[in-house]
Amino acid sequence: MSMQQRATIDALLRQPRPAGNGSVAEIRAGFRALMAQMNVPTEIRTRTTTLGDRPAVLVEPVDAARAGTILYFHGGGFVFGSPETAMPLTANLVTRTGFRAYSVDYRLAPEYPFPAAINDALSAYRALLDRGEHPSTIAFAGDSAGGGLTVTTCLTARDAGLPMPAAIVAFSPGLDMTRTGESMDTKAGIDPLFTRASLEHTGAMYLDGQDPHQPLLSPATLADLNGFPPMLLQAGANDLILDDATRLATRARAAGVDVILDIAADLPHVYQSFTGVLDEADEALDRAAHFLGQRVRSGDLGR
Amino acid sequence: MSMQQRATIDALLRQPRPAGNGSVAEIRAGFRALMAQMNVPTEIRTRTTTLGDRPAVLVEPVDAARAGTILYFHGGGFVFGSPETAMPLTANLVTRTGFRAYSVDYRLAPEYPFPAAINDALSAYRALLDRGEHPSTIAFAGDSAGGGLTVTTCLTARDAGLPMPAAIVAFSPGLDMTRTGESMDTKAGIDPLFTRASLEHTGAMYLDGQDPHQPLLSPATLADLNGFPPMLLQAGANDLILDDATRLATRARAAGVDVILDIAADLPHVYQSFTGVLDEADEALDRAAHFLGQRVRSGDLGR
Repeated sequence: MSMQQRATIDALLRQPRPAGNGSVAEIRAGFRALMAQMNVPTEIRTRTTTLGDRPAVLVEPVDAARAGTILYFHGGGFVFGSPETAMPLTANLVTRTGFRAYSVDYRLAPEYPFPAAINDALSAYRALLDRGEHPSTIAFAGDSAGGGLTVTTCLTARDAGLPMPAAIVAFSPGLDMTRTGESMDTKAGIDPLFTRASLEHTGAMYLDGQDPHQPLLSPATLADLNGFPPMLLQAGANDLILDDATRLATRARAAGVDVILDIAADLPHVYQSFTGVLDEADEALDRAAHFLGQRVRSGDLGR
Repeated sequence: MSMQQRATIDALLRQPRPAGNGSVAEIRAGFRALMAQMNVPTEIRTRTTTLGDRPAVLVEPVDAARAGTILYFHGGGFVFGSPETAMPLTANLVTRTGFRAYSVDYRLAPEYPFPAAINDALSAYRALLDRGEHPSTIAFAGDSAGGGLTVTTCLTARDAGLPMPAAIVAFSPGLDMTRTGESMDTKAGIDPLFTRASLEHTGAMYLDGQDPHQPLLSPATLADLNGFPPMLLQAGANDLILDDATRLATRARAAGVDVILDIAADLPHVYQSFTGVLDEADEALDRAAHFLGQRVRSGDLGR
C-alpha cells in the first residue's frame, strides 16, 4: 500500500459511518453513497431477474463466459446494502473468473429480521439447483453479513437435504452475533469503521429479540461444519469482527474442511472493495478468483 | 482426491518411514528412495554451484525465466534430505513461477547440530544480497524442517541487520522443537508418517542437548515476528506438527504480518510432493506460485 493509497482510503473511511447509530434510512443512504464511489469494472453486463423468492442481479462477463455460477450475498449488517452496493466485489469476481454471478436481493431487517435473509438465500440456491445446475458448478461468495450467509446458507441447505456447493469465498465475514471474539476488544479504536455500539445497533434490528446463541446466528462458535465445501476466508486485520473469520477457520479445520484463512495486516473490513485504489484489494480478489477457478467445476459438467 | 489417488499415496506412505528409529544412514537412504519416486517436471535445468559457505543447486526454467529468485530449503528433520530430495517441490515452483531457485545443501545433524543449518541458510541469503540482488526479488521457500528455516533465517537476517525477503512460502513447516502443539496428540495415529518418538529421535540429533525453548528452535511459540514479510503456510491436516503452522500464523497475525494459512483436510505432511499423482498437490503448488508471483518483484527491479 503506497502512502497515497492509504490517504485515499482514509479519506473514504472518514466519511459518515455506514453502520453508525443513525436511522435506518440514514444508514442505508450513507452506505449507498459510500459504495457508489468504488470502482466497478466495465467488462460486465447486468440484468435484474428473479431467483427463488426474491429479485437478483445477474452479472455476466461481456466476453465469453466460463460455465460456473457464483451465488453472491452482499454485506450490510442484514440492515443495509444491496446487490448494487456489492457490485464492485461481485463484478470483480466475474471479470476475474469468467463465471457469471447472481447477487441476491434478500430481505433486510428491521422490516424482516432473522431468519428472513437466510431463507431468501436458500431459496435462491434451491432455484439454481431446480434449474438443473450441478452443485459442483456453484460457489457461494459474500462480504460481511453476506459472508455470514455463505456459511449459514450451507447449514440450512444441508439440513434441507440439499447438496453442498463447490466452494465458499467470504470477505470479512460476520459470523458471531454474540460478539465474543477477542478482536471485539483488541481492535477497538484500530477498526476505522465499526464500534461495538454500531455493530449492536444494527445487530439488534436483525436479532429482533431472538437469542444470538444459535448456529445460524453465531456459526463461528456454534455451527457443525462437517461436510462443508472448501472455503477461503479473507479479512483485513483492522476489523472488530476479524476473529469471526479466525474462529470459523479453526472450527472448520477441526471438522475436516479445507480452509484458507487469508488475513491482510493493517487493512479495514472488506478492504477488497477498494479495487483500482488499493493494490492489496486487487491482489486479494485475484487470489479469490484463482481459488474459485480451482474449485468450481466448469467444462463437461457445464450447464 | 480420487480413490486411486488415495491408494497410490497410501502405498507410498506404507514404505519404511523416513523419520523412523533407524540409524542415520538408514534414515537418509530411506528418504532418498522415497523421494526418488516423486515426479519432477522436465522443463528445468539444474546445475550445482556454491552459495555462501555451501553447495547449492541452481534450478532454472528451460523457457524464458522471469527475474526473481526462490531460496529453497529442503526438508528432512535437519538430519536427512538434500536439494535432490526436495527437487519435486523446488522444480514445480520454478516451472509454475518462471523464477529461478537456489536449493541450499545446508549441513545436517548429527554431524552438525543446531544452529549449523540456520547459519548456512543465512550465508546463502547474504551471498544473494552481496551479488546485488534486491531483497524484493527474493522469496524464501521450504518444506518441513526447511519450512522452519524460512522463518528462522528471517529471524537471524533481521538480527544481522539484513533486509527481509519479499515473501515466505512454507510447506508443513516444523517450527516447534518443544513439541507442544495440540496436534502432537490429536493427530497421533492419524498421521501416516510421524510418531512423537520418530520426531524426537531425529530432533535430539539436531538439538544435541541444547534447550529447545529458544526462538530459533521453537519460533511458533517464542519468536518475535515483527517486520516479517507476507507468508503463505500450507499444510495437510493429518500431520503431528500441523499446529506448528497454525500457531505461527496466529503469532504472525498478532505481529502485523500478512498471513495466508492454507490447510488441506485429510492429507499428510508435505502432501505437495505428490504432484502428478494427487490433484490437491498440484492445486496447492499453483496457489503457492500465484502467491509468489504477487509478492516477488520482477520487472524493473530485476537482477
